[in-house]
Amino acid sequence: MNRYTLSVLVENQPGVLSKVVALFSRRGFNIHSLAVGPAQDETVSCITIVVNGDEHTVEQVEKQLNKVIPVIKVRNLGQPGEHVSCGLALVKVQCEADRIEGMMQIAKLFGAEPVDVAAGLVTYKLAGETEKIENFVDALQSYGIREIVRTGQIAIEKSGRTQ
Amino acid sequence: MNRYTLSVLVENQPGVLSKVVALFSRRGFNIHSLAVGPAQDETVSCITIVVNGDEHTVEQVEKQLNKVIPVIKVRNLGQPGEHVSCGLALVKVQCEADRIEGMMQIAKLFGAEPVDVAAGLVTYKLAGETEKIENFVDALQSYGIREIVRTGQIAIEKSGRTQ
Repeated sequence: MNRYTLSVLVENQPGVLSKVVALFSRRGFNIHSLAVGPAQDETVSCITIVVNGDEHTVEQVEKQLNKVIPVIKVRNLGQPGEHVSCGLALVKVQCEADRIEGMMQIAKLFGAEPVDVAAGLVTYKLAGETEKIENFVDALQSYGIREIVRTGQIAIEKSGRTQ
Repeated sequence: MNRYTLSVLVENQPGVLSKVVALFSRRGFNIHSLAVGPAQDETVSCITIVVNGDEHTVEQVEKQLNKVIPVIKVRNLGQPGEHVSCGLALVKVQCEADRIEGMMQIAKLFGAEPVDVAAGLVTYKLAGETEKIENFVDALQSYGIREIVRTGQIAIEKSGRTQ
């Protein structure tokens, strides 16, 4: 089983996301992550879906997606390493006075930025590949993580491949 | 019409996202953005949904969501400013040799990081609130934007409010 990233451009209409997600659900496909946001043209949304499956299965999904009416374009960005990918996490951690220094060093090392600080709690923002985010979470585990919120991964073709 | 952010914790099972999205779609709710990712406990996913609506409508959605079987918890994080929120964008821009310096200054100003550089194209990664991302895109417009991929916004309660 490999992991594939599909980039699906759709008309920004109510119900489109529901149609796309239902297609995966009906076929029993395992969506690993999903992210939706406006594309360059704001009447268009880009849905980035990471799925686990073999090549044949992914080709089937592509074909099915192309039949969904408000879908404009489906691109298979391939397996990890074949595209640039990135996700985002907000991680709320406890910070006891005597351990702040160590926590700040970890955050600096990973390039995480504090976005909220209050009452013994710090919320860090970190953007990066799945593995980087997971390593950051692991590194903060001993401080006491209160909450994690993450986006799905988004991905874009490497420039060398499009030329 | 105000904009509300809902944070929905669900069991990480196939078909859950489809159920949640279908609920919004059936009721004709306008989803502004949606992001899904694993929560702290990896058997749980967190779906962050930003919707436009009045207070009554949003309360209705909350009630409906609580009836969806694999939903564990629904939290209304309120309107912009009542929580910490953040999204992520990958922006692919043309870079002509004589204009690189100006583009690099804009990127530095916004805190955007180049994640792919090749063949006259640079892909920047930027994490921040919707407005910041939109301002960055506007600032790069004259350079020639080739592609934009964005996640939905994710959000977390401000620490002061939870204490």
